[in-house]
Amino acid sequence: MARDERGVTAQSEDFAAWYNEVVFKAGLVDRGPAKGTMVIRPYGYRLWELLQSELDRRIKDTGHENAYFPLLIPESYLGREAEHVEGFSPELAVVTRAGGKVLEEPLVVRPTSETVIGEMMAKWISSHRDLPLLLNQWANVVRWELRPRMFLRTTEFLWQEGHTAHVDEAAARRETMLALDIYHEVARELAAIPVVPGEKTPGERFAGAVATYTIEGMMRDGRALQSGTSHYMGTKFASAFDIRFTSEEGREKLCHTTSWGMSTRMIGGIVMTHGDDKGLVFPPRLAPHQVVIVPITRGGNVAVEEAADELARRLRSVGVRTHVDARPHLTPGFKYNEWEMRGVPVRLELGPRDLEARTVMMVKRLGDDGKQAVPIDSLPETMPGVLDDFQAFLLARATAFRDDHTRTVDIWEDFADAVSTGWALALHCGIAACEEEIKFLTAATPRCVPLGGEPEAGRCVRCGAASAYGKRVIFGRAY
Amino acid sequence: MARDERGVTAQSEDFAAWYNEVVFKAGLVDRGPAKGTMVIRPYGYRLWELLQSELDRRIKDTGHENAYFPLLIPESYLGREAEHVEGFSPELAVVTRAGGKVLEEPLVVRPTSETVIGEMMAKWISSHRDLPLLLNQWANVVRWELRPRMFLRTTEFLWQEGHTAHVDEAAARRETMLALDIYHEVARELAAIPVVPGEKTPGERFAGAVATYTIEGMMRDGRALQSGTSHYMGTKFASAFDIRFTSEEGREKLCHTTSWGMSTRMIGGIVMTHGDDKGLVFPPRLAPHQVVIVPITRGGNVAVEEAADELARRLRSVGVRTHVDARPHLTPGFKYNEWEMRGVPVRLELGPRDLEARTVMMVKRLGDDGKQAVPIDSLPETMPGVLDDFQAFLLARATAFRDDHTRTVDIWEDFADAVSTGWALALHCGIAACEEEIKFLTAATPRCVPLGGEPEAGRCVRCGAASAYGKRVIFGRAY
Repeated sequence: MARDERGVTAQSEDFAAWYNEVVFKAGLVDRGPAKGTMVIRPYGYRLWELLQSELDRRIKDTGHENAYFPLLIPESYLGREAEHVEGFSPELAVVTRAGGKVLEEPLVVRPTSETVIGEMMAKWISSHRDLPLLLNQWANVVRWELRPRMFLRTTEFLWQEGHTAHVDEAAARRETMLALDIYHEVARELAAIPVVPGEKTPGERFAGAVATYTIEGMMRDGRALQSGTSHYMGTKFASAFDIRFTSEEGREKLCHTTSWGMSTRMIGGIVMTHGDDKGLVFPPRLAPHQVVIVPITRGGNVAVEEAADELARRLRSVGVRTHVDARPHLTPGFKYNEWEMRGVPVRLELGPRDLEARTVMMVKRLGDDGKQAVPIDSLPETMPGVLDDFQAFLLARATAFRDDHTRTVDIWEDFADAVSTGWALALHCGIAACEEEIKFLTAATPRCVPLGGEPEAGRCVRCGAASAYGKRVIFGRAY
Repeated sequence: MARDERGVTAQSEDFAAWYNEVVFKAGLVDRGPAKGTMVIRPYGYRLWELLQSELDRRIKDTGHENAYFPLLIPESYLGREAEHVEGFSPELAVVTRAGGKVLEEPLVVRPTSETVIGEMMAKWISSHRDLPLLLNQWANVVRWELRPRMFLRTTEFLWQEGHTAHVDEAAARRETMLALDIYHEVARELAAIPVVPGEKTPGERFAGAVATYTIEGMMRDGRALQSGTSHYMGTKFASAFDIRFTSEEGREKLCHTTSWGMSTRMIGGIVMTHGDDKGLVFPPRLAPHQVVIVPITRGGNVAVEEAADELARRLRSVGVRTHVDARPHLTPGFKYNEWEMRGVPVRLELGPRDLEARTVMMVKRLGDDGKQAVPIDSLPETMPGVLDDFQAFLLARATAFRDDHTRTVDIWEDFADAVSTGWALALHCGIAACEEEIKFLTAATPRCVPLGGEPEAGRCVRCGAASAYGKRVIFGRAY
């Protein structure tokens, strides 16, 4: 396989190998000792923290409160909602021994928390005055994976899960869309992933949901990554866990509930949306280091080292996350390659001659500018704008890529061709057997019915039956 | 039992009952469905978030990086360090089934992460240039508890665990003390708990540690609460997990490691250090609501409601966490009682006549001021100072309580008396059998050898043998 000098397989050569090499080499992740588990290393975890703080702020600003619910749930709880248990049973990890004894009732390690939170909601809600109840939890969850892939499918992952209860369907549906809007904004504005928001077809719904909404991102291999989901549960979980309230008119009613989640999977999405043959490319708004300064000191140059530190201080004072790579035992060239591979948006090279001229060489991770000498003293003023432009550039580039790899198709031959390199926008009959057949033939599944799609009707691209959903569906191969 | 109108048992009557009632009634916590698990409700979780953000900042400012390690650890890992497995075996929860199959090797749910982090450190460290490796993790851990108590001993709790590796003993011991200093500062300056930092006696050490340091707080029933611990591991875990580096001189050496943790137990400590018969008393720096405004509207008064909202906005703009309790169906008196019980430092009552006079009635949760009319417009300027004073008052009060309940004792009769209401400062022989006997007779254990204690030697308070440790030891009954 063709590898460049950093030892990373080319994206075009083998995308899966590229991904797997890059997440390890860049220091985002490592394999845990138990099968399918991952260690999120500091560089990857910092990205998660930055995403988390932005998402948490939006969740709080819309009136939700954080809480924490138990990891271990009695196995019988899962069974209270029939579709839910059917969906999750194959993925459960079960504690059968504890404190040196065999447990009377085994405990499952939460795969998601609808059941335990449903139980608590039933205790906490009695009147319409207790509604809406708007909860969120940051937690780890465990779903046994036979074919783990770092960040995308791992036995354990980190996420937030919102769980809310409302007086009626209209209020719960508004909440479902509010959460989806937050995810859309976070994906687009922070991760620079031009996701498409839409509704899942019945076959792709969350186990136990009445309606599931998703944001779908297109990765650079043309596949779709489901990057956040929001579910309207109707009264299914309220029935199963007896979540009732007395209405203003004094009548006892079931609540309507929702749940919604975004996870460390987003890190994988960022890697696969922006990365290239040189390695990672991080969007500035989530990059652990937005700027790396490499002082060129050739065996020690105090003036250059001090100037690098001083510049870093000034950049930090205007809110730019800046790292000085002062490691004495490595060459500048090695550092340039390393920080390119690790996706830092902007590199500043500072040597003795630059310092004399009061300039630094600025190199962006992507774009056509090449090296550029810029006055040191202008950087605190200009750098925020440089980073904003880079952020906008990544979003525009990813949007163009997505649009170039999305085709509106009306005949089967075009469909099969479209989903081999990207997405197909097609009419579909909505019949489960037809979906299955498409999946069998092309590995593509309906990713969503886009919210923004134009009303359209006609014949199913595969079977020719009358189309469902009132508009075109996005089909693609998915992670 | 004597209960006041809020239905809370008096502290003096039955401290354990008081604690248990107050944490539930104040909405800090609820019982999870599985035995010994807890739900941290939004009001309790907010306190944790505030503590967490302050602690996290200090951990990062001292050069540590956050990362995340797997929840599930192969059972055999625990056994690699003999003392470690002996200490934790009785408390383990074990996953034996996953993905519908019986696992070949069972997985323990982490009770702490030395083993899995040790394994990763061995992979990541090769040169002295990789040291120190300064890691921290925010996570949930599971330790099976037969006698659970909310926040204090629960089957699952939340914490941070720092894990670091160093070139030699001196560096690792410095790190151990640095972590202890951070805990000391957080407990004292934020939680207003005048903890005593000290070293654990050998019998009270962490399983596998060479030295364990602790901060011990005195609760209002005179018992001690271990509120954070920091461990110097020597090379024990480095040997067990093969954590080696090549020194500057090219020699292969074992690392010296440390670990340190602070947990949601702190919430229990805050409750038991400051609470009284009316309920909770929160230190302003960690209070979810520092100020609650109760508008007195008698069935609706738009001017008063708007003035309350406006005042809240102005207080928030100067960084005061302010809540307006505008619930229309509850009386002001009910609200006063509720927010007293829930520990809000300052209450502001605002009625139509107050508004006319441009004043509010200010009531502090503790102290001898009673109600006080203060000009509305002065509050944004004065409130931060009022809160600082309240914070200082709580620390001074708790310090006085601790000192009043700590006695320097030299004879056994005084010892037994001292530990029935507080702590005894006594000389001890350091012999395990003598420690055991003291525990059997009085339920008191050595809490720590205080770092600040004066050098002193003499005879053991119990057995009369020569004293150890070179100074007095704090003995007390503990949580």
